[in-house]
Amino acid sequence: MNTERIIRKKRDGNSLSFDEIRDFIGGFVSGKIPDYQMSALLMAIYFNGMTDAELFDFTTVMANSGDVLDLTAFGNLSVDKHSTGGVGDKTTLVIAPIAAAVGCKVAKMSGRGLGFTGGTVDKLVSIPGYRVTLDNREFLSIVNRIGVSVVGQSDSLTPADKKIYALRDVTATVDCLPLIASSIMSKKIAAGAKNIVLNVKYGSGAFMKTPESAVELAELMLKIGKKFGKNTAAVISDMNTPLGFAVGNSLEVVEAVKLLHGANIPDFYRECITISALMVSQAKNISLSDAESLCENALKTGVAYAKFKEWIAAQGGDISYIENTDSFPKCKYSLEVLSDGCGYIAEMNTEIIGNVSCILGAGRNTADETVEFASGIVFNKKTGDYIEKGECLCRLYTQKSNLLAESESLILNAITLSDTKPKKTPQIYKIIV
Amino acid sequence: MNTERIIRKKRDGNSLSFDEIRDFIGGFVSGKIPDYQMSALLMAIYFNGMTDAELFDFTTVMANSGDVLDLTAFGNLSVDKHSTGGVGDKTTLVIAPIAAAVGCKVAKMSGRGLGFTGGTVDKLVSIPGYRVTLDNREFLSIVNRIGVSVVGQSDSLTPADKKIYALRDVTATVDCLPLIASSIMSKKIAAGAKNIVLNVKYGSGAFMKTPESAVELAELMLKIGKKFGKNTAAVISDMNTPLGFAVGNSLEVVEAVKLLHGANIPDFYRECITISALMVSQAKNISLSDAESLCENALKTGVAYAKFKEWIAAQGGDISYIENTDSFPKCKYSLEVLSDGCGYIAEMNTEIIGNVSCILGAGRNTADETVEFASGIVFNKKTGDYIEKGECLCRLYTQKSNLLAESESLILNAITLSDTKPKKTPQIYKIIV
Repeated sequence: MNTERIIRKKRDGNSLSFDEIRDFIGGFVSGKIPDYQMSALLMAIYFNGMTDAELFDFTTVMANSGDVLDLTAFGNLSVDKHSTGGVGDKTTLVIAPIAAAVGCKVAKMSGRGLGFTGGTVDKLVSIPGYRVTLDNREFLSIVNRIGVSVVGQSDSLTPADKKIYALRDVTATVDCLPLIASSIMSKKIAAGAKNIVLNVKYGSGAFMKTPESAVELAELMLKIGKKFGKNTAAVISDMNTPLGFAVGNSLEVVEAVKLLHGANIPDFYRECITISALMVSQAKNISLSDAESLCENALKTGVAYAKFKEWIAAQGGDISYIENTDSFPKCKYSLEVLSDGCGYIAEMNTEIIGNVSCILGAGRNTADETVEFASGIVFNKKTGDYIEKGECLCRLYTQKSNLLAESESLILNAITLSDTKPKKTPQIYKIIV
Repeated sequence: MNTERIIRKKRDGNSLSFDEIRDFIGGFVSGKIPDYQMSALLMAIYFNGMTDAELFDFTTVMANSGDVLDLTAFGNLSVDKHSTGGVGDKTTLVIAPIAAAVGCKVAKMSGRGLGFTGGTVDKLVSIPGYRVTLDNREFLSIVNRIGVSVVGQSDSLTPADKKIYALRDVTATVDCLPLIASSIMSKKIAAGAKNIVLNVKYGSGAFMKTPESAVELAELMLKIGKKFGKNTAAVISDMNTPLGFAVGNSLEVVEAVKLLHGANIPDFYRECITISALMVSQAKNISLSDAESLCENALKTGVAYAKFKEWIAAQGGDISYIENTDSFPKCKYSLEVLSDGCGYIAEMNTEIIGNVSCILGAGRNTADETVEFASGIVFNKKTGDYIEKGECLCRLYTQKSNLLAESESLILNAITLSDTKPKKTPQIYKIIV
């Protein structure tokens, strides 16, 4: 193999063969091909894209670079879900027990938060006792017994993706649709579920800024999933406001418990029902509306809440915190942010809100930072609401009082007020099956 | 400085500032910025090009990354020349003594051959005794006394270019006009001459395949040279046939001596007169036609030949070989290649001819290979000539008899015969001042 020739081929707009992709990625993982040749190839892919065949081959090689989970024992019932990341995105905490409550097998690996988006693993770990690292045997045994288990990303899954992603992160090749699609899908393929629901978010608090780019990414991923024989669907949803009202790890667990208890949180509810219904519809081969009824019912009757407690308990979580969410540790400092004007909230810059929650301690900017579980923001008003001058916009929580003034000013600047009520955007932009 | 942000800026088609270019190249040379970030930047430059300001800044930083020769003692008379490389390109051996004979100061650093193109240093070293490595003091003292000295590229010149070039070579970012232009010009700027003549070749035996791309490269380099206050001119010349008849190190020295003695080698003569006249015209601020007369005269009267011997002797070369070129060592094996058809030679694939000369031992494919000085090819017929079946096309010289059969077949395949006489292409396509 002539490595330089393969880079040149891609650079000149020609397609790479399966063998070329396999040898290149394999050589990179083994250390035979140096970083600088991979980064040149990645930049050429950034400019020239990938054909469907290349996309599939790239994903195949990454998926097979490490362990591949065998979930065939669960037949057609194994389900998995991926979110491209958002602010206040605690859906997994609700959709996983709903899907399990109606008979699906949810075997899910989740990530930690990075930058302005949170991670499910950090939220779960904020429940005292919750064990996020299980060996495969225990993981699958909990899925089998309870119907749901959520663990951290295993190091033995897709090592090629990990090594390539680390390089993309420092060479300006992250925001490239085929590379994003193959990275996500290689992990989903290796994680083994038969049914995959992709939640692609767009808006100021998402990586994709427009619904069109979110649809484009979703369609690439669907193509890959289907080629691998997976039932794959995508939900394109709005991330121009935080999802629900809470942003921050244990703050979001508390809000998820509220929803499981039947609280009225419209955007969060709609998103959870849509995603869980798609999972159920795929796994049980029933219509989406029938699946929606099942999911709504599981939530209404408290079966999903009971399943949530079973799951948390099975992974060592202390469910007394779930049964009395007031017992979650509180931050030392909090500040009520009062509106500096009056009018309808027309826009919330949700990326800034995500960054403020990081500043307060709820997130991390580099992989080695720790997070404060109780830190974050709880909103009182969101886009479309009317707010009076001096009325409470949100409350900030942190362990460090010196961060409050800066955060307050950033949050106020992230809010745009208007005299006219803004047009309501539906939470779900599109479902693609 | 955020390195990833600079790569992203260039990737997105924005221009880098002088500070960004200086910090990036400086960080790369010092090892603070790793290879994989530089190769990503280079690939982004490949796709998005460089503005004139970036091109100038990039060249400035590379030129100043090491020593810069001070030739101000020679006033306006210091001249330098660069060829983009070709097959049988021995012009420096003739134009340097011509220019010196009419009063210019030729202080030239030359490269070694790589791939299908030869290098002046290898040709000079084929003269027994010739010392190609001189310290700056001796180099400048010979220029001052004799008017000409040619040495190898100094390691202390443009270390940034050396390190970047080595990376480009293995990351498919060599054939990028602004990177080629800044690489060449950084070396010319650091070499210090006031007058620079660029010989940009096009055709099957050159890096630029079309005259248009050669003109484009020349214009980029001219822009840079002029911005640095250098008198810069370019000669765009044909490399669709080998220059002259000989390809191979001592074989080319012998042909250069023939031209200095007045032999009739039209393409080689035209190229030498054009380039040397441009140098003289710049350095003495006279018209090109006056300069041509001076150069033709220097050749005709033998003054240039005398200057050549002075120069070679000053650098330790044994001029008995020059005075009797039959004394050059001969290869053990030679083979007369006979035409396998009859007709006019319509085309010669000169890159293949260059590669065959490499195979025979005259060149190197990697920097650490050694060359055989007496190996190579001497043609009997060239493009436009009529050849009978069985008539001698050329003679191959090598130290290894097992290479002859393959080389013969490659050479015959590199020649296209035709019933009609091909239209003659002028050796000089364009002069740009």
